[in-house]
Amino acid sequence: MARRNAVYAQSGGVTSVINASAYGLIRAARASGFIDAVYAGLDGINGVLDENLIDLAQEEPAAIEALRHTPAGAFGSCRKKLKDLDKDRAEFQRILDVLAAHDIHLFFYNGGNDSMDTVDKLNRFAQQQGYPLQAIGIPKTIDNDLPITDCCPGFGSVAKYNTVSMMEGAMDTEAMYRDSTKVFVLETMGRHAGWIAASTGLASRGERDGPHLILLPEVPFDKARFLAAVERTVKTQGFCAVTVSEGAQNADGTFLSEAGGQDAFGHTQLGGAGVFVQELVKSELKFKVHGAVLDYCQRSGRHLASRVDVEQAIACGAHAVKLAGEGLTGQMVTLQRDSDAPYRWSVGHTDAGNIANKEKLLPREYIREDGFHITEGFRRYCLPLIQGEDYPPYENGLPAYRRLKRTLTPRKLEARKKG
Amino acid sequence: MARRNAVYAQSGGVTSVINASAYGLIRAARASGFIDAVYAGLDGINGVLDENLIDLAQEEPAAIEALRHTPAGAFGSCRKKLKDLDKDRAEFQRILDVLAAHDIHLFFYNGGNDSMDTVDKLNRFAQQQGYPLQAIGIPKTIDNDLPITDCCPGFGSVAKYNTVSMMEGAMDTEAMYRDSTKVFVLETMGRHAGWIAASTGLASRGERDGPHLILLPEVPFDKARFLAAVERTVKTQGFCAVTVSEGAQNADGTFLSEAGGQDAFGHTQLGGAGVFVQELVKSELKFKVHGAVLDYCQRSGRHLASRVDVEQAIACGAHAVKLAGEGLTGQMVTLQRDSDAPYRWSVGHTDAGNIANKEKLLPREYIREDGFHITEGFRRYCLPLIQGEDYPPYENGLPAYRRLKRTLTPRKLEARKKG
Repeated sequence: MARRNAVYAQSGGVTSVINASAYGLIRAARASGFIDAVYAGLDGINGVLDENLIDLAQEEPAAIEALRHTPAGAFGSCRKKLKDLDKDRAEFQRILDVLAAHDIHLFFYNGGNDSMDTVDKLNRFAQQQGYPLQAIGIPKTIDNDLPITDCCPGFGSVAKYNTVSMMEGAMDTEAMYRDSTKVFVLETMGRHAGWIAASTGLASRGERDGPHLILLPEVPFDKARFLAAVERTVKTQGFCAVTVSEGAQNADGTFLSEAGGQDAFGHTQLGGAGVFVQELVKSELKFKVHGAVLDYCQRSGRHLASRVDVEQAIACGAHAVKLAGEGLTGQMVTLQRDSDAPYRWSVGHTDAGNIANKEKLLPREYIREDGFHITEGFRRYCLPLIQGEDYPPYENGLPAYRRLKRTLTPRKLEARKKG
Repeated sequence: MARRNAVYAQSGGVTSVINASAYGLIRAARASGFIDAVYAGLDGINGVLDENLIDLAQEEPAAIEALRHTPAGAFGSCRKKLKDLDKDRAEFQRILDVLAAHDIHLFFYNGGNDSMDTVDKLNRFAQQQGYPLQAIGIPKTIDNDLPITDCCPGFGSVAKYNTVSMMEGAMDTEAMYRDSTKVFVLETMGRHAGWIAASTGLASRGERDGPHLILLPEVPFDKARFLAAVERTVKTQGFCAVTVSEGAQNADGTFLSEAGGQDAFGHTQLGGAGVFVQELVKSELKFKVHGAVLDYCQRSGRHLASRVDVEQAIACGAHAVKLAGEGLTGQMVTLQRDSDAPYRWSVGHTDAGNIANKEKLLPREYIREDGFHITEGFRRYCLPLIQGEDYPPYENGLPAYRRLKRTLTPRKLEARKKG
């Protein structure tokens, strides 16, 4: 097989393990026998459009190794979504021009549903233009909302981090409730789907363990029922720990933190769902309340990653190279569950078009009948994904996360015209 | 030496390592030869007042071992402060009655400056009454604001947790700023002193590393200077990571989150300093902003503890028993720094009255001249305290934190009359 150059880029919100996928891909590419140079786009697809191609051959081997345990996007990520093919062909043509200028015929894109849209469109455009290109997607999203794949790299670690944080916050509250805080609220990420919020339910093994209540985007918020449940929990347990998804919604589809749900306070921008729930409990039930919003710390919290998640992220990166070696294109790597207990998994693939712009919400059978917690079915699904620890090395008390040099390869084209 | 019974209790906000002090104390007591039964007060001094004395002999040995790695207060903590001796002697008399009923002549109290006030007062009252009592304090506070002792158990771990969280949140922002969030704000605990917020400065080893700016309670907030600094950092680095202490204050002494500093939004209860700073940057500079408030997760975040801190906490518990064996009373265990590099420390003691109700703020020489960061002097002070990791064991993907049985010893007195 003729050796080809490849480009890899990261897209969308970063995770604790997206760089582990890069690590898996780079190692597999170097061992493949059919890939020559590997470039990385600086800031995702922007790096291709702007011909900002990081030359990975310039990086020290130890820096490539450190990708395995370094969180966030080492090459820079992006929020850019390409326009429809029939609306703006110039952007797609520019991508092919840059790829051609550097003799790149393999395009690896590491991201979520928007990114698979890019893989799908670019693949179709290259075919229309007769440019030989294999475009392969590598899944990545803490939100765990991609269809077809059983789970998404990034989710296991964010689930573990939030579950442990809920355990610790709830234990703190349990120790102090007699004459201090009675209600603890943890806000998790997940703007549309409740996978992350639901995962914290794993911390609840007995009735005394938090979270006692989980507010999911999939279940319309009912203020009276929620407040009654909080009051009942404080009465029986002495305290109450609540997880609320940032995407929790009122019955009319507005977010909790939007005006519709927050008119007593009159301001929609201050804080999100967590602050809203804190205020509600404080003003209606007069309990002392505390709350945590872990924000980016949860999705880049590599100090507490799931070993299963790290291994799956690496495997997904490596499998993308394998798919390329098999001559496939327009595909995304998937994770398949072969058995629950013991948990066995393998990698597969699907058309990127099956993933593009689709969202997998938490199914009803994973939500307890009253809407406030998870079921045993969800526990069976999620618990395997948080197994094992994978600590980064530490230097002088802090994780030995590393930056790459990110040396750009010399440009061969004129700068593009910006719209 | 005649064998005596002892009681141990936890007081004030809990930490990742207060139970490690209990572990050190219980082991030392059992090995001491002069201590017979060890009881623990349920919910701090409340447990003594209510004669709710946990019988530690009923706990499984593995549960006592697990105290070493279990965060928050295993016996329950409290916010109760005893009244002045000359105002309410009944409460002090009740404590002595309960101690006498159980033949307890050793009182170990694990807490901060309020708790040392209790140790001091109880010691003086027992002497006045001719009741043979040794009262010994064990330091504990994430705030690190006790005088005389070089540092406080709990601080090293909260410093490590926040510093790593800042590293991870800043790396996340650095990866995404090109077309997403430009400013990341981390709110830390520390209502009066800036030790915790300052500790995150350890994450900043080069100019690209967050935090770029730290807002401390010791430096009056200057809105114009702060906004100019944020704007300058975004201009030079592309992004800006800010740590703000929950205790950051305006020049008039009001907290940032109070009305004086927040009148544009009109509501004082919604969120704290972190939300205030986020709103300010968003409205004045029009940058996209994200923020994390780790709240209780930081002070009970035992999954990421400092090994030095764990060892010091255990040593403080054990040393309290040693002081008792030497016949001392009215003392608090202290930590002494014998050298900076290599860091060497030892335990000592001081009069509890020297600690009671006093606060040690961050000294000026630890604050950079512009007020927005730390100095090399602070780095020398703080870096040794976050050294080493001390991971809890995990079971089925989650830390093996344990609850005690907390079997109460049979009561011998009538219930006290509650005021």
